[in-house]
Amino acid sequence: MENGKPVKVILPEIKNPVFIEGYPGVGLVGHIAANFLAKELGMKMIGYVESPFIPPMALILEGKPNPPLRFYGRDNLIVAVADIYVPPTLVNEIVKETVRYLKEMEAAKVISLGGIGIGFFKEKMDVWGVGAREELNRELEEMGVKVLQYGSIMGMSGKLLWEASRENLNAYVLLGETFGDRPDPRAAANVVEALKSLTGIEISTEPLLKEAEMIEEQLRRMHEQMEQARKKAEKQYESIYL
Amino acid sequence: MENGKPVKVILPEIKNPVFIEGYPGVGLVGHIAANFLAKELGMKMIGYVESPFIPPMALILEGKPNPPLRFYGRDNLIVAVADIYVPPTLVNEIVKETVRYLKEMEAAKVISLGGIGIGFFKEKMDVWGVGAREELNRELEEMGVKVLQYGSIMGMSGKLLWEASRENLNAYVLLGETFGDRPDPRAAANVVEALKSLTGIEISTEPLLKEAEMIEEQLRRMHEQMEQARKKAEKQYESIYL
Amino acid sequence: MENGKPVKVILPEIKNPVFIEGYPGVGLVGHIAANFLAKELGMKMIGYVESPFIPPMALILEGKPNPPLRFYGRDNLIVAVADIYVPPTLVNEIVKETVRYLKEMEAAKVISLGGIGIGFFKEKMDVWGVGAREELNRELEEMGVKVLQYGSIMGMSGKLLWEASRENLNAYVLLGETFGDRPDPRAAANVVEALKSLTGIEISTEPLLKEAEMIEEQLRRMHEQMEQARKKAEKQYESIYL
Amino acid sequence: MENGKPVKVILPEIKNPVFIEGYPGVGLVGHIAANFLAKELGMKMIGYVESPFIPPMALILEGKPNPPLRFYGRDNLIVAVADIYVPPTLVNEIVKETVRYLKEMEAAKVISLGGIGIGFFKEKMDVWGVGAREELNRELEEMGVKVLQYGSIMGMSGKLLWEASRENLNAYVLLGETFGDRPDPRAAANVVEALKSLTGIEISTEPLLKEAEMIEEQLRRMHEQMEQARKKAEKQYESIYL
Amino acid sequence: MENGKPVKVILPEIKNPVFIEGYPGVGLVGHIAANFLAKELGMKMIGYVESPFIPPMALILEGKPNPPLRFYGRDNLIVAVADIYVPPTLVNEIVKETVRYLKEMEAAKVISLGGIGIGFFKEKMDVWGVGAREELNRELEEMGVKVLQYGSIMGMSGKLLWEASRENLNAYVLLGETFGDRPDPRAAANVVEALKSLTGIEISTEPLLKEAEMIEEQLRRMHEQMEQARKKAEKQYESIYL
Repeated sequence: MENGKPVKVILPEIKNPVFIEGYPGVGLVGHIAANFLAKELGMKMIGYVESPFIPPMALILEGKPNPPLRFYGRDNLIVAVADIYVPPTLVNEIVKETVRYLKEMEAAKVISLGGIGIGFFKEKMDVWGVGAREELNRELEEMGVKVLQYGSIMGMSGKLLWEASRENLNAYVLLGETFGDRPDPRAAANVVEALKSLTGIEISTEPLLKEAEMIEEQLRRMHEQMEQARKKAEKQYESIYL
Repeated sequence: MENGKPVKVILPEIKNPVFIEGYPGVGLVGHIAANFLAKELGMKMIGYVESPFIPPMALILEGKPNPPLRFYGRDNLIVAVADIYVPPTLVNEIVKETVRYLKEMEAAKVISLGGIGIGFFKEKMDVWGVGAREELNRELEEMGVKVLQYGSIMGMSGKLLWEASRENLNAYVLLGETFGDRPDPRAAANVVEALKSLTGIEISTEPLLKEAEMIEEQLRRMHEQMEQARKKAEKQYESIYL
Repeated sequence: MENGKPVKVILPEIKNPVFIEGYPGVGLVGHIAANFLAKELGMKMIGYVESPFIPPMALILEGKPNPPLRFYGRDNLIVAVADIYVPPTLVNEIVKETVRYLKEMEAAKVISLGGIGIGFFKEKMDVWGVGAREELNRELEEMGVKVLQYGSIMGMSGKLLWEASRENLNAYVLLGETFGDRPDPRAAANVVEALKSLTGIEISTEPLLKEAEMIEEQLRRMHEQMEQARKKAEKQYESIYL
Repeated sequence: MENGKPVKVILPEIKNPVFIEGYPGVGLVGHIAANFLAKELGMKMIGYVESPFIPPMALILEGKPNPPLRFYGRDNLIVAVADIYVPPTLVNEIVKETVRYLKEMEAAKVISLGGIGIGFFKEKMDVWGVGAREELNRELEEMGVKVLQYGSIMGMSGKLLWEASRENLNAYVLLGETFGDRPDPRAAANVVEALKSLTGIEISTEPLLKEAEMIEEQLRRMHEQMEQARKKAEKQYESIYL
Repeated sequence: MENGKPVKVILPEIKNPVFIEGYPGVGLVGHIAANFLAKELGMKMIGYVESPFIPPMALILEGKPNPPLRFYGRDNLIVAVADIYVPPTLVNEIVKETVRYLKEMEAAKVISLGGIGIGFFKEKMDVWGVGAREELNRELEEMGVKVLQYGSIMGMSGKLLWEASRENLNAYVLLGETFGDRPDPRAAANVVEALKSLTGIEISTEPLLKEAEMIEEQLRRMHEQMEQARKKAEKQYESIYL
C-alpha cells in the first residue's frame, strides 16, 4: 500500500468494452450467470482485483491458480466474477477503480447481474431491470424486462449502477426473480436471456436449464421421500393407538 | 481516499441558499418532512455525499438510481436527506464539509428538522426549536415555536447547529413532539408548518395529515380487534370457570 | 484531519492563566465543581475542543448551542468542562494540546478537580491533593489539604498533572473524598473550598451545600419509607405465623 | 513503520534459490515437513520477517533466541517456517515482499508444502499438487503427484502460488492427504518424498515415519484401553440386569 | 503523532549502560525485582515512554507524579519498569526504540528479568537464563543459572532479547521459577541474586526474603484456619447424623 490505494484493478486496454458484473448475491443468480458466460463463451482470465484486504488464497480451476476476484475477456466483452463475499468498503473501492477504467475505455455498456428474492414460486419468474437513464429503462421495457421503479439495490450491483450513471455510462442492473434461499440456475438463465437481448451475445441457456431441472428433480425426490416417511409414520401411529 | 478526505460533499454553486436537513431520527420526523418537501415542491436531486464509508448501494426512485445521502434543490432551496443510518464519525465529517460549503455560499438559513420523543400523546403536540443566537430564538418564539432552553441534540441536527453557529450562520433546529416509537407524519406536518413560517415556503401539509390519519385509523382498528379478542377470551374463561 | 492532528484546542490568548479542569469522574465531583464555578462566577464560553472523534451533538444551555467539551473564561481564569465521557486516546491528545497552550501562555496554575471514592461516610470528608513538585505539596499541606503520597490518578486529571509537571508548570490535583456511587455536591463544595485557598477565587459554596442537603434529605426520606415498609411487612408476617 | 511498509523480509542475496514454504496449516503437514528439512539438512537461520503486527516473542532453539517467522538456508535452498498463526492481512504482505525478493533473485523454484484434510484413512495417502503452469503440472504428474484440477488453497500456500505464478516463477503447491484433526508426520513424509523428486534434495524420511509410528502406536493403545474398558462395563451391566 | 512514531523513548545520554527490564509478567517476578532495585539502590527517575496508546494516568510515588512506563537510573545503570499491562503492538514499538537507544549508547549489557511458572514448589527454586550468543550462555552457566535450551519467551523480555541480539548487544533473560498464580518476592530475590553475579551490582535481597516470609506466613495462617474450620464442620456433621 505504498501509494495509499487500497485496491488496484488490473485490466488490459479494451476499447468500448461491454462490462458484465456477477458478484455473489441472492440465489447466487449473478454468480451463476457470469461464470456460465465465461465458460460457455470460452473466455480467458484477463485481469483481477488486487488488495491487501482480500483474503489470501488461490482458486484452482482446470489445474491453474486464479485470484478470487477476477475478470474474463473475449473481444470487447469483460465479465467480472468473485469467489468470495466482498466487504462493503472494498466494494466501494473496487467500483471506484472499475468505473475509472470503464470511463477511460469509453465503455459501451455496464451491466450488473443479480437476483431478487421473492419468497415464492410462480409460473413465470420475471426479470426486473433498471438503467442509469430514462431511455435505458425504455430499452429494457421493450425487451420484456420489468422496470424497477422503487427499491434499493445493495452491494456491488447498486454501487456500480450509481457510479457508472454518474459518469454517463450506459449502466443497467438485471435482477432475476428467485425464491431466495437456494442457488437458482433457472433465474440465472432468465437473466442471461435478458442479457442476450441487451447485448446481442449469442449463447444457449440450455445447460443452465438442465442444471435447474436436475436440482429441481433432486428437491422433488427429497420431498417425496419425506412425504412417504411421514405417511408411514402416521399409519404406524394409527395402528398403535386405534 | 488519495487526498485524505473521508467525505466529499458534491453540490453546485447556489448563492444564499436556504439549507434544510432531515436525516433519520426519533419518529422519522425529519426524514418524513424533508422527503415530503422534496416531493411536493418538485425538487430535483442536485448533489450527494461521497465516502468510502457509506455502504455500497443505489436507491431506485421513479426508475432512477440515487445515492443514499443526497441533496434536492429548487431555486435557492436545498434539502438534505439520508436513507441510511449515518455513523457518528461520518456525521462529523459531513457537517464539516457541508458547513464549509454553506459558509462559502453565504447561506441565508440552515435549518435542521427532527423529532423529540415525549412518550405520550396530548391534544396539541408542540414544536420546539433553538437557534444559533438569541435573536433567532426570538424569531422562533414569535412564530409559536417553543424555545428549548436546556437539553442535548444528538447527531446531524445537533452538530450542524453548533458548527453553523460557529460560522455565524442563521442556524435553527426544529423538533416536533412525537410519541417516539413509530413513524409520525403528523409531527412532520407540525414541523413543516413551523418551517413555512420561518422560510416563507408555500406548501400544504394536507397529504401528511391524511397519511397520519391512515396510520392512526389502522392502529385504532388493530386496537379494537385486540380489545374484542380480549373480551371474547374473558367471556369464554368465565363460562368455563364460573 | 487534513493535517493529521486528531484534536484541536481552540482558546484565545490569555496570559498567565489559572486553568481549572473538571471532567466527569468518581461522584461527578470535578464536573459539579467546575460547572458551579463557571455559573457562579458568570464566566462566558471562550473556547472548545474540536475532534472528529467526539460524538456529534450540541448541548443547549440557556437557549444556546454549545459543544460538549468546552472552556469557560473570565479574566485570567479558564475552566474546562465536558458533558460526555472522553475515551483514553482522546484524553491523551487533549492533554497534549492543552499543555502546549498552557506552556505558551505561561500558565500561573493548572488545577484538576475530582473525587476519590472511599465507600463510606465520615464526619469530615477530607480533600486530598498532590502537586507537581515538593514545594507545591507543602503549599497544599499548609491549606489543610492531605497530600497523597502513593496511588494512581486515572484519566484527564492524572495525565494533565503529569504532562504539566513535565513542563514545570505549577500543576495540582484536588480530590474530594466521596462515597463514590452517587453525584456528590458536598464533596464538590469541599474541593471548591480548597481551590479558593489555592487561587484566591472568592465564591460562596452555600448553593452546593444546599443542593447536597436536598439530595441527602431525599435519600433520608426514601430510606425512612423503606424502613417503615419493612417494619409493616415484618408485623404482617408475624401476625400470620405466630 | 516510518516508511509505511507493514512487513520487511530480511534475507541475504541468494542467486536462483529454491524456496520452500511450510507455514502451519491442516495436520501441521507443511510445518512438520519444513522444520524436518531445516533440521536434517543442518540448515542455518539466515533471515526473518519483521513486522510490528507479529506478537512480541523469542523462540529459544538450542539455547539461542529466534524470531517466530524465519528463514533457514543452505546453498541455494531457503526454507520458510512460522511458529505462530499468521493473520490474513499479514500473509498478503509477507507474500508480496517474498515474491519481490524471489523475482529479484530469479528463483529456480517456489514450493509450498501443506496438508489436505480428507477425514478418513486409506492404504496409500496420496500427495496432491498444482503448479503455476500446465508444464509444471505435467512435471508433477510424472513424479506420481496427483494434479489438483479444482479447489481452493487458502492462506500462505495459495497466495504464494498465485503471486509467484503472476511473476512467471516456477511455483508449486504440494499437499499431503491427512485425516485432518491431528499433527501428521506420515503425511509430512509423503510430501517430503514428492519434494525430493521435484528438487533433487537427498534426505531420508525415516525419522518422520518413526515419529508417525510412535504417535500411531500411542493412539492404538489408547483405543485398546478404551475398548477393554467398554467391554468390562458392558459385562458388569449384563451381570446386573440379566 | 505528527511524525508518525507511535512511541518515543525519552532517556538522557548514558554511555555503555547496563539496562535492566522488569515489566509485569508471571508471578510479577520481573516487576518486583526491578522496583526493588530502583528503590534499594536509591535510583532516580531519569526517563519514560511516551505514546498516545498508553492509558492516561499518573502514578503518585512519594508524593510526586510519575508516568506508568518509566526508567530509573544511577551511574550507568538503567532500570525499566511498567505499572500497567502493555499491549503487544506497543511492546514491539517500545523495544524498537529502546534497542535503537541502547545501540547508540553502546550498551554493556541488556538484561530482562521475569518469572517462569512451574505450578509446584520445590526445595530450591532455580533461575533459568538464556543469552544472545553461546558465550553468554556459558557465562550464565558458570554463575549457576540453568540455560534454557528450548521454549518461547513472550512479551517484552522475549522481544528485547531477540532485537538486542540482532544488534550484537550482550542480551540476557533471567527467569525465576515461580508457582505462577501469586506475586513471588522469593523468586524475585533469586533473580536478583543471579543479576548480582552477572553485573557486579551490590545489594542485599534480605528485604525481599522478609516480604516473602510475610506472604508465606499469611498463606499458612489462612490455610490453618480453613483446615480448622473444615474439621469443626466435619465434627458437627458427624454429631448430627451419627
